[in-house]
Amino acid sequence: MPIGPIDATRSPYAKLRTLPLDGVTLSGGLWSQRQSVNRGVSLKHGYEQLEKAGSFSNLRLAAGEGEGQFRGMRFSDSDVYKWLEAVAFELASAPDPEVQRMAEQAIDLVEAAQGTDGYVNSYWQVVEPDRRWDDVASGHELYCAGHLIQAGVAYHRATGDSRLLDVSRRFADNIDSVFGPDKRAGTPGHPEIETALVELYRHTGDRHYLRLAGYFLDQRGRGDLGPGRFGPEYHQDRVGVRDATTMEGHSVRQLYLTAGVADLFLETGEQALHDALMRQWRDLTEHHLFVTGGVGSQHRGEAFGEPFDLPNENCYCETCAQIASIMWNWRMLLMTGEARFADLLELTLYNGFLSGVSLDGRGFFYVNPLQSSGKDQDSGRKQAQRQEWWSCACCPPNVMRLIASLGHYFATGDSTGLQVHQYGGCTIESQTDSGQRIVLRMETDYPWQGLVKIVVDQTPGAAWSLSLRVPAWCERASLRVNGQEWDAPAVPGAYVTVDRAWQKGDTVELDLAMLPGLVQGNPRIEAIRGRVAIQRGPVVYCLEQADQEESLDITEVEIDPSSPIQDTWQGGLLGGVTTLELKGFAIDNGRWQGKLYMPVAGSEEVERKPTRLTAVPYYAWANRGPNAMRVWVPTAGTQRDA
Amino acid sequence: MPIGPIDATRSPYAKLRTLPLDGVTLSGGLWSQRQSVNRGVSLKHGYEQLEKAGSFSNLRLAAGEGEGQFRGMRFSDSDVYKWLEAVAFELASAPDPEVQRMAEQAIDLVEAAQGTDGYVNSYWQVVEPDRRWDDVASGHELYCAGHLIQAGVAYHRATGDSRLLDVSRRFADNIDSVFGPDKRAGTPGHPEIETALVELYRHTGDRHYLRLAGYFLDQRGRGDLGPGRFGPEYHQDRVGVRDATTMEGHSVRQLYLTAGVADLFLETGEQALHDALMRQWRDLTEHHLFVTGGVGSQHRGEAFGEPFDLPNENCYCETCAQIASIMWNWRMLLMTGEARFADLLELTLYNGFLSGVSLDGRGFFYVNPLQSSGKDQDSGRKQAQRQEWWSCACCPPNVMRLIASLGHYFATGDSTGLQVHQYGGCTIESQTDSGQRIVLRMETDYPWQGLVKIVVDQTPGAAWSLSLRVPAWCERASLRVNGQEWDAPAVPGAYVTVDRAWQKGDTVELDLAMLPGLVQGNPRIEAIRGRVAIQRGPVVYCLEQADQEESLDITEVEIDPSSPIQDTWQGGLLGGVTTLELKGFAIDNGRWQGKLYMPVAGSEEVERKPTRLTAVPYYAWANRGPNAMRVWVPTAGTQRDA
Repeated sequence: MPIGPIDATRSPYAKLRTLPLDGVTLSGGLWSQRQSVNRGVSLKHGYEQLEKAGSFSNLRLAAGEGEGQFRGMRFSDSDVYKWLEAVAFELASAPDPEVQRMAEQAIDLVEAAQGTDGYVNSYWQVVEPDRRWDDVASGHELYCAGHLIQAGVAYHRATGDSRLLDVSRRFADNIDSVFGPDKRAGTPGHPEIETALVELYRHTGDRHYLRLAGYFLDQRGRGDLGPGRFGPEYHQDRVGVRDATTMEGHSVRQLYLTAGVADLFLETGEQALHDALMRQWRDLTEHHLFVTGGVGSQHRGEAFGEPFDLPNENCYCETCAQIASIMWNWRMLLMTGEARFADLLELTLYNGFLSGVSLDGRGFFYVNPLQSSGKDQDSGRKQAQRQEWWSCACCPPNVMRLIASLGHYFATGDSTGLQVHQYGGCTIESQTDSGQRIVLRMETDYPWQGLVKIVVDQTPGAAWSLSLRVPAWCERASLRVNGQEWDAPAVPGAYVTVDRAWQKGDTVELDLAMLPGLVQGNPRIEAIRGRVAIQRGPVVYCLEQADQEESLDITEVEIDPSSPIQDTWQGGLLGGVTTLELKGFAIDNGRWQGKLYMPVAGSEEVERKPTRLTAVPYYAWANRGPNAMRVWVPTAGTQRDA
Repeated sequence: MPIGPIDATRSPYAKLRTLPLDGVTLSGGLWSQRQSVNRGVSLKHGYEQLEKAGSFSNLRLAAGEGEGQFRGMRFSDSDVYKWLEAVAFELASAPDPEVQRMAEQAIDLVEAAQGTDGYVNSYWQVVEPDRRWDDVASGHELYCAGHLIQAGVAYHRATGDSRLLDVSRRFADNIDSVFGPDKRAGTPGHPEIETALVELYRHTGDRHYLRLAGYFLDQRGRGDLGPGRFGPEYHQDRVGVRDATTMEGHSVRQLYLTAGVADLFLETGEQALHDALMRQWRDLTEHHLFVTGGVGSQHRGEAFGEPFDLPNENCYCETCAQIASIMWNWRMLLMTGEARFADLLELTLYNGFLSGVSLDGRGFFYVNPLQSSGKDQDSGRKQAQRQEWWSCACCPPNVMRLIASLGHYFATGDSTGLQVHQYGGCTIESQTDSGQRIVLRMETDYPWQGLVKIVVDQTPGAAWSLSLRVPAWCERASLRVNGQEWDAPAVPGAYVTVDRAWQKGDTVELDLAMLPGLVQGNPRIEAIRGRVAIQRGPVVYCLEQADQEESLDITEVEIDPSSPIQDTWQGGLLGGVTTLELKGFAIDNGRWQGKLYMPVAGSEEVERKPTRLTAVPYYAWANRGPNAMRVWVPTAGTQRDA
């Protein structure tokens, strides 16, 4: 039975156990819809784009086939591997001969490109064959190897075809022969291989892969990567992983690294790793998190930036960083069983991650701003339109592999029963420790409705417990079992557990009050002072120009903080969304025409005209052409004129 | 008689005429004090630092003397030239044998380095002798030539010694033989030579220098410089100078360019140049100006950035950009005679420029933030401490040459009389069109006091008019002549003119109400929403941690917008300043501990404790060790909790 991106079923220090990959099958609602588009459109689009960008032809060159020059980034191969991993997850769910043929061609190429010693990296093989491993700081060989390993493992799990797994093992063995104590020292410039090697260990049982992952993690903080342009923190080489207290440097690198550290902990249980991760998670959530779950404040160095530096229009919030955050939080959840990690995973999934892909599955953001003029600006740094691909194309196939494997993140098991972390129409299949089958059916219009109904379709006779996450954002939740109020309280930010001898046909109904509301930010976040965001359940909203009355300019509006918020389901809009309507004001800033500054005394009262504001889910913005957008909106009265 | 940085005494399209360099001699108060420090400390400090940085030794290498390798930036020579220009202005005011000897040594070096064909640039001579002029986009040869010319002209005007002028003419002639129609095409990557060539024309009367300046200005907008990293706007090569509508790209480059365009207009009167400059000035003041007069929002590309993008902590506001802005505004004033240009020059002088140098004259900011944690952060990008020199040392000698020539910007003449633009203790000497001498003495404690007294020490018998700028910031001004109220109104933002037959001993007293007040910003400036700045006269204030009560953290305070503001002269503080005291509140943000976001509903009232806040002039910050600072402070009530 195939197993998901992580197989933590036997990890000794996992509080929760991952389910098999087909343990959760999405079957309706938002995520199922996204998976269909991913399967039906994005994967083929990805194949075409990889061809167009030269990623396949680079491998052909490495294999001694084809003609031309290496094209694109040094880490071009990793785009192919992430796409292959996505294909694997989809093939595990449903056969697709066309996509499978594409994947097999790609695997042929990787196989052919691999050297007899196991090394495979088209850039270094084609462009600088004499300089292998000379530049671990920015060469991305270990990074690409990590993605190869993850793809190899996923493809084997999904299809039983071991060709790509064999390629990746040969490369991993080659790496093991090069790096290590008494061998070449090496700190991976871009983390990724660490988490991949732990997974290769989980899949193969070969402990030397785990040792090698540990070796690479141990190298950090020695300064071997040099200061580079942005200091050693750029690639997390300022302190060792056990001494880390903050999230720093390049946000994707940092989050892939913490994912790797968490994987190592799940296998070794080393307390120092656990403690460092807890400190770093606290730093993330207390200082560096956007309200969308986005991470990465700075374009410069693609970095976390300073605490509380969370700009709206100039933020980075790379799609890959949100994906990395989801991967890390999942591992933290497996480590601890604590709801806060599943909460953050949910927030990131519905907002900062999902904004990264267009509704049609053919457009991708690299950067996910919280405010936009609607125009790509500043040589494309401020992105207002999703692109079909990027010259640095890390994000698109990363989106594909996450959406393809999404069910993996919905539920876990342990010796007492099942835990449901995410909500959406699906079937959950698992088994008890004694091997007896459990099948649940989840019916819900989540996140548009808060009612989640779970029907027991198959169960052993013995009692087991079903735990459901009550999200921290939920002010009021209640639980019914077979129509009867359950007496344990459903506390926000924790799991509510029903422990009983289940029978086929039993139903559990979790009712989460899905109330729209305004959110404010810590006053230390300068970019959002005097502003509010709009949230409903896990979904963060935005004002997009397209939804407003024609004369209204969203750059000159305020929200009335006492406004009731009206929610309306609109099945035909943006793939089906609940929109929100609020009272607000159109501000006449005419007196500011041509002026940047004026004295406070002597300035007249601001003219405010009541208006209606319509908000749509943030993730759905920029699907209707160029369009101004903002997540944080001033509230009336914050612009003082006293 | 020596003439200042600009000799617009015969420029046909100058509404106002520059005075001779020694036309204004500073004799007391803030600027005179800064000039003494510049003369007594900074110039020698500069000499030592130029030696230490390798700038002199680079020239030695180019001259075939000395040993070692070229050090520093390609434009290392320009630091020497700016320093020589500063020395020239000082020598024009007062002899200083020690500094003169240093300057002559430097001139010896430049002379020796110059090739027989007139070319001189130590980087290209020493490091890449075969690649001269190959890289006009970033080679900085024309930029250095411009500074050489300015220094040569200034040194000749100040001392009568023509050696450096001769060097610069030889180089200008060499450039003229290389570039032009039917010769090599060339667009200077970093403007500077344009304004310099116009001045060389003014000084020598040789029209081919003016033609060459015009040629270089005409090259812009052809895209010859290529897109580079930041697009053609980075070096103002997106549109031609006559079609420009906005300030864009690298702010120093843009402002040196507009200064050059203004110089060309002053000599040619071409309307299209005038109109473009007016559009660009409007763009500057309506979209890109910091409240300190600082310019340049972005570290990336050292650029103006988007309209209204005026961040506090992450702004650039390079000292050189403020200097360039002063130079451009001066030329705009000469072109138009309009007070708004002198107003902006004043604002920039007292704030964004003056913050660039420490009170002791040995420390220099490159970047002038409007808010700081007090720590140098982000690999030194966020500067909280002035440095004795920079590896890119454009700013320190630029500061020196501006301070040394400051009197130049105080007054002008025209056929009707004299105009006073800036206030400070000084003597103003000029002459009427018929060559009769006028001597005025200005006595004032400006900017600490608003009373400016002007005594006529020498005057011809015939009537002439004295015009005084009434700053736009001044709400109430009055004028007395010989103790009697003058009947023409003193309108803020315009000149008030007294036209009469003067007699020796006549006095004019301009009384400018010097009232402290709060300033607010255009709501489109996101970084300062809900905040106010404090200003008194031309001086913008800041809160610096050092001046507050010990328990107060300036990151957690609000100003009471209804607070009276108490001003107090403190002669012993920061070289003598007026401090301001305001009522405000210390905010208890304890409920935000560990939280980035929370719902608006359900949050309690913020706890505010009344407190006293002390503000000091912004320019004087960071003279007492590491110290948090902020210009824009939230006002009470802007953080809503409804």
